[in-house]
Amino acid sequence: MGVMNNSKPEPFAAPEVIAIKRDRGELTDSQIDWFVDAYVRNVIAEEQMSSMAMAILLNGMNRREIVRWTQAYINSGETMDWSKLGKATADKHSTGGVGDKITLPLAPLVAACGVSVPQLSGRGLGHTGGTLDKLESIFGWQAKLSNQEMFEVLNQTGAVICAASETLAPADRRIYALRDVTATVESIPLISASIMSKKIAEGTGALVLDVKVGSGAFMKTVEQARELATTMVAIGNDAGVTTRALLTAMDVPLGLTAGNALEVQEAIDVLAGGGPTDVIELTVLLAREMIDATGTSGTKDPATALTDGSAMDVWRKMISAQGGDLSKPLPKAKETHEVIADKDGYLTKLDALSVGVAAWRLGAGRARKEDQVQAGAGITWSAVPGDQVKKGQVLFTLHTDEPTRFPLALESLMPGFEIGKQNEIAQRLPLVIDRITGQ
Amino acid sequence: MGVMNNSKPEPFAAPEVIAIKRDRGELTDSQIDWFVDAYVRNVIAEEQMSSMAMAILLNGMNRREIVRWTQAYINSGETMDWSKLGKATADKHSTGGVGDKITLPLAPLVAACGVSVPQLSGRGLGHTGGTLDKLESIFGWQAKLSNQEMFEVLNQTGAVICAASETLAPADRRIYALRDVTATVESIPLISASIMSKKIAEGTGALVLDVKVGSGAFMKTVEQARELATTMVAIGNDAGVTTRALLTAMDVPLGLTAGNALEVQEAIDVLAGGGPTDVIELTVLLAREMIDATGTSGTKDPATALTDGSAMDVWRKMISAQGGDLSKPLPKAKETHEVIADKDGYLTKLDALSVGVAAWRLGAGRARKEDQVQAGAGITWSAVPGDQVKKGQVLFTLHTDEPTRFPLALESLMPGFEIGKQNEIAQRLPLVIDRITGQ
Repeated sequence: MGVMNNSKPEPFAAPEVIAIKRDRGELTDSQIDWFVDAYVRNVIAEEQMSSMAMAILLNGMNRREIVRWTQAYINSGETMDWSKLGKATADKHSTGGVGDKITLPLAPLVAACGVSVPQLSGRGLGHTGGTLDKLESIFGWQAKLSNQEMFEVLNQTGAVICAASETLAPADRRIYALRDVTATVESIPLISASIMSKKIAEGTGALVLDVKVGSGAFMKTVEQARELATTMVAIGNDAGVTTRALLTAMDVPLGLTAGNALEVQEAIDVLAGGGPTDVIELTVLLAREMIDATGTSGTKDPATALTDGSAMDVWRKMISAQGGDLSKPLPKAKETHEVIADKDGYLTKLDALSVGVAAWRLGAGRARKEDQVQAGAGITWSAVPGDQVKKGQVLFTLHTDEPTRFPLALESLMPGFEIGKQNEIAQRLPLVIDRITGQ
Repeated sequence: MGVMNNSKPEPFAAPEVIAIKRDRGELTDSQIDWFVDAYVRNVIAEEQMSSMAMAILLNGMNRREIVRWTQAYINSGETMDWSKLGKATADKHSTGGVGDKITLPLAPLVAACGVSVPQLSGRGLGHTGGTLDKLESIFGWQAKLSNQEMFEVLNQTGAVICAASETLAPADRRIYALRDVTATVESIPLISASIMSKKIAEGTGALVLDVKVGSGAFMKTVEQARELATTMVAIGNDAGVTTRALLTAMDVPLGLTAGNALEVQEAIDVLAGGGPTDVIELTVLLAREMIDATGTSGTKDPATALTDGSAMDVWRKMISAQGGDLSKPLPKAKETHEVIADKDGYLTKLDALSVGVAAWRLGAGRARKEDQVQAGAGITWSAVPGDQVKKGQVLFTLHTDEPTRFPLALESLMPGFEIGKQNEIAQRLPLVIDRITGQ
């Protein structure tokens, strides 16, 4: 008795299809294709998609359903094709963490090793930063490129980092906005489809997923992260994109900075052959994984490309090709506040979430999509868990243009670290927890 | 980080409240009050209410939550008060069945025994008929009354059957329409709240629920029906309305007719002291239960009021007070089709759903709210399970204004009955399966 008010007959009625998932059934391929397509055509209403999303969140989807749901997102828009480059392509996606600036050195590094990197990135929401927000702190740099401009930057420099076009998986764009207001974000099938549809439509040949685990990550436990990683690796490989995932630590923030311009500077330090050990290590590991996933061996090892200046060369060309002027100094926040060690001892813990929320409250992130971020805002720190600290040492420097933000930021930061004895140093997750290849 | 675009601050953000139910938590009283009220004020969007409805359907609600959710529906509109009548009041609600015309003789019968019956009824959707559709087959009868008119009919005649005003539980009206298109109808908490909010707002002092069980009913099993009945009895009693439920059989249709005018005629037969045994028995049982639930003993026994003409007197006054002219003949369908017994034997089964769908396909019911029903359409039958039948006997007569409807109606009806041997007579549910008082 499903009723459609459409002149053209529809093969299904929305309530009947929703009822199948509600009753823990499996959706057929044609039901999935129709449901997503009919939503894009406004035959299925927002309230029908949201009750379906809640049913999917609570009752799950099997691998076939997830792969097909993702494909339906891809089919809703255009797909890109880099075959004219005549080179292997690889991309990386991180599920988001605190101080996670890895994409910035990684893309030029992989390009310096002979593999092209067409990287579509996003902006930050909440306590995890966004790659585009970070790069936009470089004077003149433009996130938005046409498909032709994207091809040209990639062809000239070997790497491009830009915003995804609105024509890529538009169904996901609408469904993501809907999920945000209907408490249906936290679904592994829907998260996987959202991430993977964009990456597959983007046309990369290989994909490495950096699935973060810990307090500062979306996935708090190794089990959740492994489920998400396994699902996404399956979707990618089923769609013909060689896909692998690393589960990496986000119990402690990455590097020694969280913020936009602050992280760009740290990325430049790494490209110059310096920078914090964990950032260097993870960047090199992910670069090797990306090159390996293309089935080629690359023109050199990534560790070499960091020290011989070739990665930095690509970085300069890539930023410049998108209007960025690296000769201009990076923005600095107007105000700073220092947190001083009140005793001698060891930094026994440094919580990623506390640091991330503090940086967000200083203005580095946004609470809603419409918000502006402060380019200079954020936090820098001088010690990581296990390091010895001295009374009077500047442990943290908070940066913001608005000093009224300090109290709330400190409220998040202060319970997030401790100075104690050497035997009290909290156990950390290993930097790489697991590797999933789908084989 | 919930974001409200409202000038007046709201105490909650919708996604956060939805997430509680999604994660199997309990909603607080103030969260429930706010969620329903904010929906009515259009602060909560359709897609947010539908994802909440799906979460409620899949994760359930406890008794406190259901009672409060119901109260929030009631609080969204006006409530009625019959204390000026100076008499005990009782109402009945049926969850709907095939051939269920019980309300028609029951309301005047109870009034004839000294208890007032303010009965708000609905129209049919799908294979179960609606009381208002049936009464509208009486020439001139008007379903729509103002509150003042409703009071006057009730005061003058002791009973009134009319449409619920749109000001009664308007939140339920909107949510019901939303559930219909989002596959969130089949939730015992939401069904209970929908039914009970109207009955409590209607201001009846006592309420008897006729919860149907079997193929022709919404609840197919005794367990489901008992859960629904127990939930509704709890809501009513918690709201101060003495509420009881009978679980009654709907594996076989009630009486010997399914349709609108056809059922009115059968109701008149019962009020005249005749009619089918099962209709008489259930009408008298429900009448006794209604009178008893008021805490009074009534002025006479219902069985007497059927035979002494007093129930018929109330019926005539009640119909006449709403413009109905019983001197005009009831509408008859233009076309009939007879189904003849093809052998001697016993009617071994008669399936309520098959008969209901056939009557619906003949035009007695509607597929969508906007549809018109045919007053004369429906089915009459001459035998019930266990009855002996003779080859050549007219078993069923199908009535419709449009003979093109016969083939589809027969497609539903024919597999719904069988003629066989006496030892093959299918076991039937007892007419009354259980009685639930909430004590």
